Amino acid sequence: MSTVGVVGAGLVGCLAALGLSKKGYKVTILELRDDPRKSQNKNLRSINLAVSNRGINALEYVDPELAEIVLSKVIPMTGRMIHNLEGVQTSQNYGLTGKEAINSIDRSYLNELLLNEVEKAGITLKFNHKLDRIDFNNDNGNPILKFIGNEIEPLEFDFIIGADGSFSKVRQNLQKFIRMDYQQEYIDCGYLELSIPGGGPQQNEFLLDKNHLHIWPRDKFMLIALANLDGSFTSTFFAPWDILEKLSNDDAVLEFFEKYFKDSVELIGKDHLLKCFRDHPRGSLLTLNCKPYHFANKVIVIGDAAHSMVPFYGQGMNCGFEDVYVLLKLLEQEKDVGAAFSKYSETRYKDLASILELAKENYKEMSHKVNSKVFLLKKQIDFILTRILKDKWLPLYTMISFRQDIMYSKAVEVHQRQDKILKIIQNVILGAAVFGASRVYKYLTQK
Amino acid sequence: MSTVGVVGAGLVGCLAALGLSKKGYKVTILELRDDPRKSQNKNLRSINLAVSNRGINALEYVDPELAEIVLSKVIPMTGRMIHNLEGVQTSQNYGLTGKEAINSIDRSYLNELLLNEVEKAGITLKFNHKLDRIDFNNDNGNPILKFIGNEIEPLEFDFIIGADGSFSKVRQNLQKFIRMDYQQEYIDCGYLELSIPGGGPQQNEFLLDKNHLHIWPRDKFMLIALANLDGSFTSTFFAPWDILEKLSNDDAVLEFFEKYFKDSVELIGKDHLLKCFRDHPRGSLLTLNCKPYHFANKVIVIGDAAHSMVPFYGQGMNCGFEDVYVLLKLLEQEKDVGAAFSKYSETRYKDLASILELAKENYKEMSHKVNSKVFLLKKQIDFILTRILKDKWLPLYTMISFRQDIMYSKAVEVHQRQDKILKIIQNVILGAAVFGASRVYKYLTQK
Repeated sequence: MSTVGVVGAGLVGCLAALGLSKKGYKVTILELRDDPRKSQNKNLRSINLAVSNRGINALEYVDPELAEIVLSKVIPMTGRMIHNLEGVQTSQNYGLTGKEAINSIDRSYLNELLLNEVEKAGITLKFNHKLDRIDFNNDNGNPILKFIGNEIEPLEFDFIIGADGSFSKVRQNLQKFIRMDYQQEYIDCGYLELSIPGGGPQQNEFLLDKNHLHIWPRDKFMLIALANLDGSFTSTFFAPWDILEKLSNDDAVLEFFEKYFKDSVELIGKDHLLKCFRDHPRGSLLTLNCKPYHFANKVIVIGDAAHSMVPFYGQGMNCGFEDVYVLLKLLEQEKDVGAAFSKYSETRYKDLASILELAKENYKEMSHKVNSKVFLLKKQIDFILTRILKDKWLPLYTMISFRQDIMYSKAVEVHQRQDKILKIIQNVILGAAVFGASRVYKYLTQK
Repeated sequence: MSTVGVVGAGLVGCLAALGLSKKGYKVTILELRDDPRKSQNKNLRSINLAVSNRGINALEYVDPELAEIVLSKVIPMTGRMIHNLEGVQTSQNYGLTGKEAINSIDRSYLNELLLNEVEKAGITLKFNHKLDRIDFNNDNGNPILKFIGNEIEPLEFDFIIGADGSFSKVRQNLQKFIRMDYQQEYIDCGYLELSIPGGGPQQNEFLLDKNHLHIWPRDKFMLIALANLDGSFTSTFFAPWDILEKLSNDDAVLEFFEKYFKDSVELIGKDHLLKCFRDHPRGSLLTLNCKPYHFANKVIVIGDAAHSMVPFYGQGMNCGFEDVYVLLKLLEQEKDVGAAFSKYSETRYKDLASILELAKENYKEMSHKVNSKVFLLKKQIDFILTRILKDKWLPLYTMISFRQDIMYSKAVEVHQRQDKILKIIQNVILGAAVFGASRVYKYLTQK
């Protein structure tokens, strides 16, 4: 039985461990932090998760029962709810029928659920194991994980899965053995976690429609909110760093929120809003990708460790889960681990590059374009064409979020072809409108 | 007196230390390796250096006498000498007059010379200091360098200069305090060091013209050779990795070299050639850049630590020396260290991005284009226009290698403008040639 060391007990690491364990590998998870199920420290930098089809597909592939449990704990969101400056709310469906939904779920709940499953599956879980470096056994070439602190024994495995997040130590080690292309880029946008408590006597009533992802789009900055099961919403404020830094005292925060997010101030509560701005850390957002993702049949990185993306397409976790799915499939299909890793690096790069780019672009859509008449017109034409042409015409958002059978790069390719046609139609419509208006004007002035 | 820790005792680190020391800073150099002047181990991965105007300008700025010593130990190269398959040699001037030269110099000689100057200047040199991490003093925020090995004392400085090469530990630390954009990309080309011994009874006679950079351009791969003072040439073979890997036994090497570099086999010597391929390590080539280069008034990276480039424009060291020049000038002009670092990051990035790109592109020119008739035609027009228009028209190579007053990004900008015009002229000439040929053909067929 081959032994596997999975570095990182986050969402992607746990799912990979479960999948490998089901395939008969002897799996150990090494996590640098303490068991989150025992810890009282809440992470104040979490952005709520939306699990959609790609994620669900991977969960189902690994364990249909697990997927069912997860889906019983989500809140489906069928569209965006746009809040304008006056507090007026307008709904925009995500899907074609109004029934397709992405699903709000609490990150720590999901992580704890996965950790419980991992334990049930007989996978060894070692917390407080901070990776120092990876050495190789001279005899069989197997990777040996060495940890910080002399009292922790080194561990040897047949291969290693690095699922240890954006600042991955496994990836840093990988760069020592292979010629790895690598890039990371921070976007000029930070974020801060806020929350909207539940209302009513029991504080468990939703103060906004729970089945929407709420957005207050204000061009350069925005506020969002996603519902939790207990009636509360987790809310996140995104803004360029210069704006975030100016919001450094109570007066500035209050003035800013009263001006741009008036209806949210009541929902969040004035005191709580100010407390969050005083106490919560500011998070930064980066895009990173590398190539290749593996070293021989010994080490591979997946999830954020291989490719971090900004959160604006709601695909970070879904894509990480899809990594697990793709890798498990290849381990099944290819002749050995080395061939599977090699094929993974070869085929996965273009899909990851596609979704990273889309995630970056979607900030514009969320914070700005959702307000634009031309955008809404294009979206309407998009929907009409889909209704007429059925599966021959699919909006990009639908392909990314609801069609796990279409890989990211394919979705972008189809979208680019469709977008050219859309632009032509849009211009014809706008042209007709201008023509019509000019006729009206002519009629009026001739009179 | 402010204290400065320079990490890295390579060429750029030494020059930075000398420059800062002259400006009144108390400088200490920390180097992870042993003193190269004491060591017998020859680096078998060096690619010969060509110092040109930007490098000389920086040396002169730091110490005119030092520049003079360096220039007394170089071999000027006024052009490329192209070796074709039959061994026929053709000279191509680098400059406009045939007198402008880039200057071959031995890397280890130059490094030892700089180390001697560093010691004379009273700069503290600490070898075998392998940086572990940078901490900060809680009281004054000063960086503290911590080294690997408990017996080595941590050192505190007012600020740190990281000149510790492509795999810079200072840069890796910097990434922990700031949001640094970063990219690295390996090109599909490795290299292997060879050499051509001196000839004659004393083995000190040059077997090729010493005042040329010799190139055997073979499209996807190439061989180059630069003269050393002792009559020998340091030669480097560059090729895509699949070709390099196939040259894994004596027969394959010999067959390959006999086929593509026949005249070089005699020069290098059959046995020595095979020995080199057996024993010498294969080097890889990467491009890397980051942004910003500094953290507050505490840490900055320069040279290869900030931007590694492939060696095909002969600008790696020259650019690193120019970094030192630009930084020293800013420390003079700006109100404090923080302002100087900040201005450096702001203004230097576009110049570095420009030269990195040019270096990558120049592989095509060296290995392939120098053989092309159209390239040579364009080059001739370029030279003619320069002669007519004087300073108003400058070939790119001239601006990069001989005009330290024109920054890299400016040179690229001017070149792009000129190149458009060149292409038009070239097309007119080629058009005229085609027209002329068609007239001749018509005349001949009508007869």
